[in-house]
Amino acid sequence: MNDPIAELCALLSRLPGIGERTAARLAYYVLGADPSYAAALGKNLTTLHSRVRRCERCGNYALQERCNICADPRRETRILCVVARPQDISALERGHAFSGRYFVLHGLLSPLDGRGPESLPVTQLLSLLDQESVEEVILATPLSVEGEATALYLAQELKSKNVRCTRIASGLPHGGELEYSDQVTLSRAFEGRRDV
Amino acid sequence: MNDPIAELCALLSRLPGIGERTAARLAYYVLGADPSYAAALGKNLTTLHSRVRRCERCGNYALQERCNICADPRRETRILCVVARPQDISALERGHAFSGRYFVLHGLLSPLDGRGPESLPVTQLLSLLDQESVEEVILATPLSVEGEATALYLAQELKSKNVRCTRIASGLPHGGELEYSDQVTLSRAFEGRRDV
Repeated sequence: MNDPIAELCALLSRLPGIGERTAARLAYYVLGADPSYAAALGKNLTTLHSRVRRCERCGNYALQERCNICADPRRETRILCVVARPQDISALERGHAFSGRYFVLHGLLSPLDGRGPESLPVTQLLSLLDQESVEEVILATPLSVEGEATALYLAQELKSKNVRCTRIASGLPHGGELEYSDQVTLSRAFEGRRDV
Repeated sequence: MNDPIAELCALLSRLPGIGERTAARLAYYVLGADPSYAAALGKNLTTLHSRVRRCERCGNYALQERCNICADPRRETRILCVVARPQDISALERGHAFSGRYFVLHGLLSPLDGRGPESLPVTQLLSLLDQESVEEVILATPLSVEGEATALYLAQELKSKNVRCTRIASGLPHGGELEYSDQVTLSRAFEGRRDV
């Protein structure tokens, strides 16, 4: 493409949640802003994939061979939390919900998209369990159809290992109203009821 | 900053309408996408300001000395449309609202932000009127306080020239309901009423 502005709009509109009009607004903002901003953003993007790699242990994004979490000796090694994507780790870390270590699947089972069991890093997960003294694996994939199917599949694969396998709870979110909750969430909240 | 992901999030969150959470979502999208995408976007941004310049005649973004519109001999030269920003030209061109030429102010009067009359390219505008056989100047700055003040100021400055000076109409937008219109818009719609 010869027009750099049209090219920038086209590139930006590939971002999630950014339509053509928003892409144009962003492109014109960059053009109108100080050139140092476009230069800084351009430099970051150009060097991004060479500076960020995957942690050799857990698959999280990392700057060294191991990510910050795997390199932290204070993290509990008895509990391993399996997530679909690196950004799920960021969300959990923000909430300080978990003090153990992670394992990133970088995807979920999705037969309709041609992603079968062979697309999941099950071998790496099992060998990690052999190497480390993990007592519990928390399956923290999303509560979607793909996330549930993946959790079920992994639970079966982990049966041969002497390890407790748990799934994050499903129910009403904090502050949730029964009136505005969907039927599946309500059923799950009842199934998962606990003694008080 | 040493963490390229945190740096990318910080840079993206400076874009208009992009908060911290959206910036993180976009950053993780770029990381998860094919590296060629980040490379293409990075290259575009790095070279953007050196490839895009301002049209020597009207101030619009241009790839050569003159923008596509000023270089087009089919555009009417009798009517000149004055706008605040280059993106306003894009909007008008999309709607095929105007077949003349443009002049971009690259800003509006805004005393509170320290932008007085000296910040406007009035000298360039006046010399352009001297050089070209312009019969009408349409002041198409926004209908905001700053846009109105700028239009008023320019109209006074143009009084010495033998040129008709007009302002775009203010009133209810297409499909507009009286019930949902603000008081100023309604007053202007009444003031600007026309014979049918």
